[in-house]
Amino acid sequence: MFVYADHAATTKISPCALEAYNQTAWAFYGNPSSLHTEGQHAKEVLEKSRETIATILNATPREIYFTSGGSEADNQAILSAAYAGAKKGKKKIVSTAIEHHAVLHTLEKLKKEGFEIVLLPVGQEGIVKAEDVANCIGEDTALVSVMLANNEIGTLQPVEEIGKICREKGVLFHTDAVQAVGHIPVDVAEIGCDYLALSAHKFGGPKGVGVLFAKRGAPLTPLIEGGAQESGKRAGTEDLPAIAAMAAALKASVADMGATNALLKKLQTKLIEGLSRIPHSALNGDRERRLAGNVSFCFEGCEGEALLLYLDDEGICASSGSACTSGSLDPSHVLLAIGRVHDVAHGSLRLTLGPENTEADVDYLLEKIPEVVEKVRSFSPVWRDLKEGKRQFIL
Amino acid sequence: MFVYADHAATTKISPCALEAYNQTAWAFYGNPSSLHTEGQHAKEVLEKSRETIATILNATPREIYFTSGGSEADNQAILSAAYAGAKKGKKKIVSTAIEHHAVLHTLEKLKKEGFEIVLLPVGQEGIVKAEDVANCIGEDTALVSVMLANNEIGTLQPVEEIGKICREKGVLFHTDAVQAVGHIPVDVAEIGCDYLALSAHKFGGPKGVGVLFAKRGAPLTPLIEGGAQESGKRAGTEDLPAIAAMAAALKASVADMGATNALLKKLQTKLIEGLSRIPHSALNGDRERRLAGNVSFCFEGCEGEALLLYLDDEGICASSGSACTSGSLDPSHVLLAIGRVHDVAHGSLRLTLGPENTEADVDYLLEKIPEVVEKVRSFSPVWRDLKEGKRQFIL
Repeated sequence: MFVYADHAATTKISPCALEAYNQTAWAFYGNPSSLHTEGQHAKEVLEKSRETIATILNATPREIYFTSGGSEADNQAILSAAYAGAKKGKKKIVSTAIEHHAVLHTLEKLKKEGFEIVLLPVGQEGIVKAEDVANCIGEDTALVSVMLANNEIGTLQPVEEIGKICREKGVLFHTDAVQAVGHIPVDVAEIGCDYLALSAHKFGGPKGVGVLFAKRGAPLTPLIEGGAQESGKRAGTEDLPAIAAMAAALKASVADMGATNALLKKLQTKLIEGLSRIPHSALNGDRERRLAGNVSFCFEGCEGEALLLYLDDEGICASSGSACTSGSLDPSHVLLAIGRVHDVAHGSLRLTLGPENTEADVDYLLEKIPEVVEKVRSFSPVWRDLKEGKRQFIL
Repeated sequence: MFVYADHAATTKISPCALEAYNQTAWAFYGNPSSLHTEGQHAKEVLEKSRETIATILNATPREIYFTSGGSEADNQAILSAAYAGAKKGKKKIVSTAIEHHAVLHTLEKLKKEGFEIVLLPVGQEGIVKAEDVANCIGEDTALVSVMLANNEIGTLQPVEEIGKICREKGVLFHTDAVQAVGHIPVDVAEIGCDYLALSAHKFGGPKGVGVLFAKRGAPLTPLIEGGAQESGKRAGTEDLPAIAAMAAALKASVADMGATNALLKKLQTKLIEGLSRIPHSALNGDRERRLAGNVSFCFEGCEGEALLLYLDDEGICASSGSACTSGSLDPSHVLLAIGRVHDVAHGSLRLTLGPENTEADVDYLLEKIPEVVEKVRSFSPVWRDLKEGKRQFIL
C-alpha cells in the first residue's frame, strides 16, 4: 500500500490545474506585456486569474501581486515594510518563534542590518497570544508578522485579533498564509492584514507560483527589478500558465473546502486517537485550533529520521518537520518553541493529509506507525535508558 | 494569415517541454527536500536537470542555480557581486547603455546606495568595445556586466574578449545571456564569466523558470531567504516540472541549433533585403554580428505603436522594442544608444523569428509591412513635414 501523508510539504497538482496549465501554455502563449493580439489575450487571462484570486481572498485585483511562490512573497512583504519603517525611524519588528524560515531568515537578515527583532514565545499549545503582540508593539514598531497556520503543527494563530491590534496601533501586519489558503476560509479584510503570502503548490496548484497580497497603500518595493510587470513591483515575464493553474486550483479547493474538511476532520480524529495509544507519545499543538489535515506527534525515545525511513519502506510518505529543513540534524524550532526538549523533539512525526486520502489510508497508518515506532525504539539507546530507569520519561 | 514574429518577447512552449512538464508534475510531484521516496525521486529529476543544463553550458552542476527566470538571476548576480565588492571597498560597476532593464534597474538601485555605475556607450552598430571596458576597469571595480546578445537589436557583444580582460584584472564578470542561450552556442568557460543568466521561455521552455550560473567561488547571496534549497542560495520549493521542462527545451534547442540557424539566417537575409527597399528605412544594429532571428528596423516618419497595431490587424505579431517596456512612450534606450534620434527611434519595428517560421511567413511580412508603413506615414505629421521639406530626412 502507498499513502502520501505529506501534503504540507507539497501536493500533487490537481487535474483541473494541470489542464489550465496546458490550455494556457498552448492557447495564451503571448507575453502579456506585448501590444499585439497574442499578448493582449494573454493579458486578459492574467487579469482574469488575478480577479479570481482577489475575489476569493476578498481583496481587489490591484492588491494581488504574482510571485514565484510563498517564500518570495514573504521576503518581499517583510523587506518592504521594514525599509519603509526604517525611513521613519521605526526599526522594530514583532514576530513569533514558530514562523516559517522564509520569515525567520528574512528577519535575521534585517537584524544584521540593525533592526530589532522580537520573536514572541508561544504556549505549549503552539499559539501566540494576541495580547503579547499588543504589549510588544511600540512607537518604533514597523511591522508585525504572524503566520496564519503553522506548517509543522498546523496550529491556527489569532490573526484577526492581531490584525485589529495592528490597525488600532497603526502598525503594518503581515501574515504568512501559505499553509492556510485553499484549506480554510481566508479573508484579508477580516484578518485586517496589510500583506499576505500564499503558495499554489500547497493546494493542488503548480509549484513555482504564489501571491503576495499587499493592501492598497501598504509600502511595496520590488525584490526583483526590471520590467514594469505587476505594477512595477515584480519584474519578469509573468508565468501565465502557472498563474491560470493556480487560480483554477484555488477555485476548486475553495469549492470543495467544506467536504474536504469534513473528511479530513474525521480522518484526523481517528488518527490522533489511534496514535495517542502508542505509549509515551503526545500530539504536538492544540487539539482543536489546528488545520484539519495536520497530525503532528512526538514519540519519546524514537529517532525521527529513522522513523521516516522505515515508514517509507512501508510506502508511507511523511515528514518530521517542514520539508525545507529535512536532512538537518537540528530539532525543529517549532517543537522547541512549544516546550519539547531536544530529545523528544527529535522523535517527531508530521502526517499531513489531503483530499485524496481515505479511511483505508488511516487504517494503514495506524497499523504501521505503532510497529515502526516500536522497531525504531528497539534500536534506540535513549529508549533503553528510559526503560531501564536511567532517564525519566517526559511524555 | 498569422505570423508570430515576436520570439524575443516569448516563445510558445515546445511540445517536448510541455510533455516533460506534465510527466514530471504527475510522476515526480514530491518535494525534493523530503526524505521519503517521492521526495528523493523528485530530487533525482532535479539533479538530472541540473546536470543536463550544466553540460550544455560547460559548467559543473554545482554552479547551476535554478531561479524564477532571467530577471531574478540578473538581480541576484549583480547584487551578490556588488555587495561582496563593497565589503572590500570596491563600489564601481561597469556596464553598457544597451543592457536589459533587469540589469539597468538593478544598477540604478545600487547607484542610489552609493555605487558608481558606468554605462559604456556602444557604436552605431550596437556593439560595445572590449577596450572601452578594459580602460574603464580600475582598482575600485567590483563587477563588469555586459549582455551576450541584445534583446532589441540582437547584436552580439564581445563577451569572450571582455571575459579575458576581467580575468586578467581580477574583476567579476556577469553576462545576461537571456536572448542567447538556446539560440547560439554558449560556453561559460569560453566566455570566462563568473555569472550568467538565462530564461527558459526564450527557447521553447516554460515561463517562470531560469538559471543563474555562478562560477565556483563567485560571491553569491540569496535574494530570497528561507529554506536550504539550491545550496542555501535560493529559498522556495523547486518548480520541478518547469525545471525538467527547461532542461528538455534546452536540449532540443541545442540539438536543432544548426538547422534552426540555417533557416533563420536565410529568412533574416530575405527580410532585411526586402525591408531595406522601403524608403527612408534602416536596419538597427550590425548586419552580421547579430542573432539569426532578429530583424530590427527604423522607418522614418512612422509612429511605431500605430505600426504594430496595423500589423496586428493583418495577423502579424511584432514589437517595437522589448516587450517589457511596451506601452511606454519613451523611445527605446537601445535605439537612442546606437544614435537614433528620438523621432526615428519611435518608428522602430522588431521582428524576431523562430524555428516554426517559414519562407511564406517572410513573404507575407514583406507584402504587408511596406503597405502598413505607407499607411501609418500617410497619417503622420512628421512624415508630411519630411515630404514637404520642413524637416530633413535622416535615414
